[in-house]
Amino acid sequence: MPSFVETPVTTEIPGPVSRASSKRLDAIFDARAVHFVVDYNKSNGNYIVDVDGNKYLDVYAQIASIPVGYNNTTLIEAAKSPEMASALVNRPAVGNFPSDQWVDILRDGLMKVAPKGLSYIFTAQSGSEANELAYKAAFMLYRRKQRGDGVEWSEEETKSCLNNSKPGSPELAIMSFQNSFHGRGFGSLSTTRSKAVHKLDIPSFNWPQAPFPALKYPLAQHAEENAAEEKRCLEEVERIITSWHCPVAGLIVEPIQSEGGDNHASPAFFQSLRDITKKHGVCLIADEVQTGFGATGSFWGHDHWNLSSPPDMVTFSKKAQTAGYFFGNEQLIPDKAYRQFNTWIGDPARVIMCKAVIKEILDKKLVEQTARVGGLLYNQLENLAAKYPDYIQNLRGKNQGHFIAFDTKDPASLVRSMRAIGVNIGTCGVNTVRLRPMLIFEESHIPILVGALDKVIGAL
Amino acid sequence: MPSFVETPVTTEIPGPVSRASSKRLDAIFDARAVHFVVDYNKSNGNYIVDVDGNKYLDVYAQIASIPVGYNNTTLIEAAKSPEMASALVNRPAVGNFPSDQWVDILRDGLMKVAPKGLSYIFTAQSGSEANELAYKAAFMLYRRKQRGDGVEWSEEETKSCLNNSKPGSPELAIMSFQNSFHGRGFGSLSTTRSKAVHKLDIPSFNWPQAPFPALKYPLAQHAEENAAEEKRCLEEVERIITSWHCPVAGLIVEPIQSEGGDNHASPAFFQSLRDITKKHGVCLIADEVQTGFGATGSFWGHDHWNLSSPPDMVTFSKKAQTAGYFFGNEQLIPDKAYRQFNTWIGDPARVIMCKAVIKEILDKKLVEQTARVGGLLYNQLENLAAKYPDYIQNLRGKNQGHFIAFDTKDPASLVRSMRAIGVNIGTCGVNTVRLRPMLIFEESHIPILVGALDKVIGAL
Repeated sequence: MPSFVETPVTTEIPGPVSRASSKRLDAIFDARAVHFVVDYNKSNGNYIVDVDGNKYLDVYAQIASIPVGYNNTTLIEAAKSPEMASALVNRPAVGNFPSDQWVDILRDGLMKVAPKGLSYIFTAQSGSEANELAYKAAFMLYRRKQRGDGVEWSEEETKSCLNNSKPGSPELAIMSFQNSFHGRGFGSLSTTRSKAVHKLDIPSFNWPQAPFPALKYPLAQHAEENAAEEKRCLEEVERIITSWHCPVAGLIVEPIQSEGGDNHASPAFFQSLRDITKKHGVCLIADEVQTGFGATGSFWGHDHWNLSSPPDMVTFSKKAQTAGYFFGNEQLIPDKAYRQFNTWIGDPARVIMCKAVIKEILDKKLVEQTARVGGLLYNQLENLAAKYPDYIQNLRGKNQGHFIAFDTKDPASLVRSMRAIGVNIGTCGVNTVRLRPMLIFEESHIPILVGALDKVIGAL
Repeated sequence: MPSFVETPVTTEIPGPVSRASSKRLDAIFDARAVHFVVDYNKSNGNYIVDVDGNKYLDVYAQIASIPVGYNNTTLIEAAKSPEMASALVNRPAVGNFPSDQWVDILRDGLMKVAPKGLSYIFTAQSGSEANELAYKAAFMLYRRKQRGDGVEWSEEETKSCLNNSKPGSPELAIMSFQNSFHGRGFGSLSTTRSKAVHKLDIPSFNWPQAPFPALKYPLAQHAEENAAEEKRCLEEVERIITSWHCPVAGLIVEPIQSEGGDNHASPAFFQSLRDITKKHGVCLIADEVQTGFGATGSFWGHDHWNLSSPPDMVTFSKKAQTAGYFFGNEQLIPDKAYRQFNTWIGDPARVIMCKAVIKEILDKKLVEQTARVGGLLYNQLENLAAKYPDYIQNLRGKNQGHFIAFDTKDPASLVRSMRAIGVNIGTCGVNTVRLRPMLIFEESHIPILVGALDKVIGAL
């Protein structure tokens, strides 16, 4: 009995209808990155269908951002609710004129899944924006501590900041790690270190990067080397904090470096990061834009760290379908209103969708499902790696749900071959294939995915 | 016959229900800037209703961002469409996997109102993001011209940019004007020059600001002085471009400086800005976040400038209910895909709402209505200014639709008094009251607004 049933792909990819649609689009909107054009009405659950009628098991999921499947009925219900129509039509400046429902949308949604110890939220519209808002909160807190609680701003400060000069516009830094990705705004991009295509030609702040552990796999066979590597990186983190040309107000880290190549570190590493940042008064920001909302088999990626005290801020987006940051320390609320502010402060329509996503995740126990199915998937991939040791290397993501990746010689070609037999899959880093299934990925999809990999790699 | 009929405000503001709701909210979300909590189901057209049952004529309109009225039926129809449900539920990574409808949503919506000469669009989620994307496009274009068309990136560039160092992360600047507001991201905030509360404690790029003309009113009585003032500012613009410590790649300007105090300049000033920027190879970016979408009595604020060649980029948000930038020069599309990119690239749900807004504006001829009603409103305010010369000063916005403002001694107190008799109105700058009615503001609302001002100022 074959373990792999091919789904119907009948055209080259992109097919002729996709190409024609793309070409029309390209006349008004840069369409060079279009993989294929999608018929979202025909897409369903784990499957995406293109306009040429090709159907793919989708383990890329809109760059890891579809949480509970295409045309999910719980989400459709939320989308068609009167509450949603009002949020779409009467878009509020939520900081000035919130609706009477706003507090309950937050309480019954995002606050239900707030990371332990973090009791406040600030809403945003993208992961990049969420990170920048967290940086601003870290800078304001740093200066508040320097200035002293309740000390008024000086005239020199308020005047100089309008001219982008010291002391009002201080030299302060956010530290990040090599190979990290934290977004594409001018602040978030200054912490992104993934690829030149993300950063070239854009002015950046003179902020530091620390090395992120380059672990060797399988982990069990390299325990000692890996511990030494993590120690080396931690020492560099502390060295930079204490020697950088200006104070480091925050350190941002992904639980698993995603765009940068699915790079992992141990809970012990993150525990030490918490200790070091606390010791030096540096805000620790966990960037959970890609790891949050269940993908690692726990609701938050940093749940795996078993910290004694939580990160200062946790940012989220993607599967949340909205964005923002959680925090616990009241002092991260600036000393005056309107300092952390903007017209919309997120989008209640998207926060309502997020509430429906959370309901679906909790009702259907999708985090538990992700942990269980991810474990089974990992085991099968381990077997496949044993069969193709030259093509599946450094398999990683054990006990991290289906947040799984491996290195291979020519990931772009593997992705093309996988699409050609009906599996939409993505890459990251330099030579890595990453799996980013939705949380509704089931046992039954494992043989399809693993069978397709077997077929494609077997033919190399 | 009284020209002013008081709308029912029966509680202090915020009322007890607002205060209770705000207090609940403040436990999880900074609610210090809440004016009152809104019952959006009871709000309609030009009127906003709070949870205490108080009803206000709304000439502030969610910080100038409600285009065609609360619970507008055309917008409700769009919000309840199957197209919308799909966009909400199946949120795409629009650069990789656009829907087959995406090109038509753009063509039948935003591209219908594209500024003359600008045939491309890049979608975003906020005015701040739109401006930063425009800055990035300007920087990439500048370096493309320096590097030479088709010249490959050097290894030194691609390596150094990951370290935030030259030459990959170059020193290049965006120039803005004193008192301008362009957003709160790290790049956009570096060009914002409005108030310390927006900027203090946040690191900024060392970018230049030029003086914006401080015109004297009434314009007709100060023609010569004002022309000299504009000339002085233009000379400063050119001096800074040619002498700044690094190249100026772009200049961003609001057609009317909004947050900064409703500061105007003449078409001749903007024509000269276009000439100077063109001469020095500087991208001219018109920030139409607040002026765009009809508020000035033409669809775009820069339509009033009568330029011989268009701005290089025009950014928009607020009344559009979405955001982005238009451009005409193909070279503003970066030399490689994925340089100007992010996961979502805007939100198709909001772009669908924008299409409905545009349909409503064009079908109901709301730009023409705004020009006509704004003209009538201006005349009445001119009469009121003659009656209260100490309290209504520097009235401005003639022939700019109802984008009207005046200076007064204590704008915060005036706003409170206006709310107490049923008019929700806003301030900007230091001592300015600004009118930001929706485009559906009618002749019949003029006596209510002007009557309320008469009553409040008369009682001072």
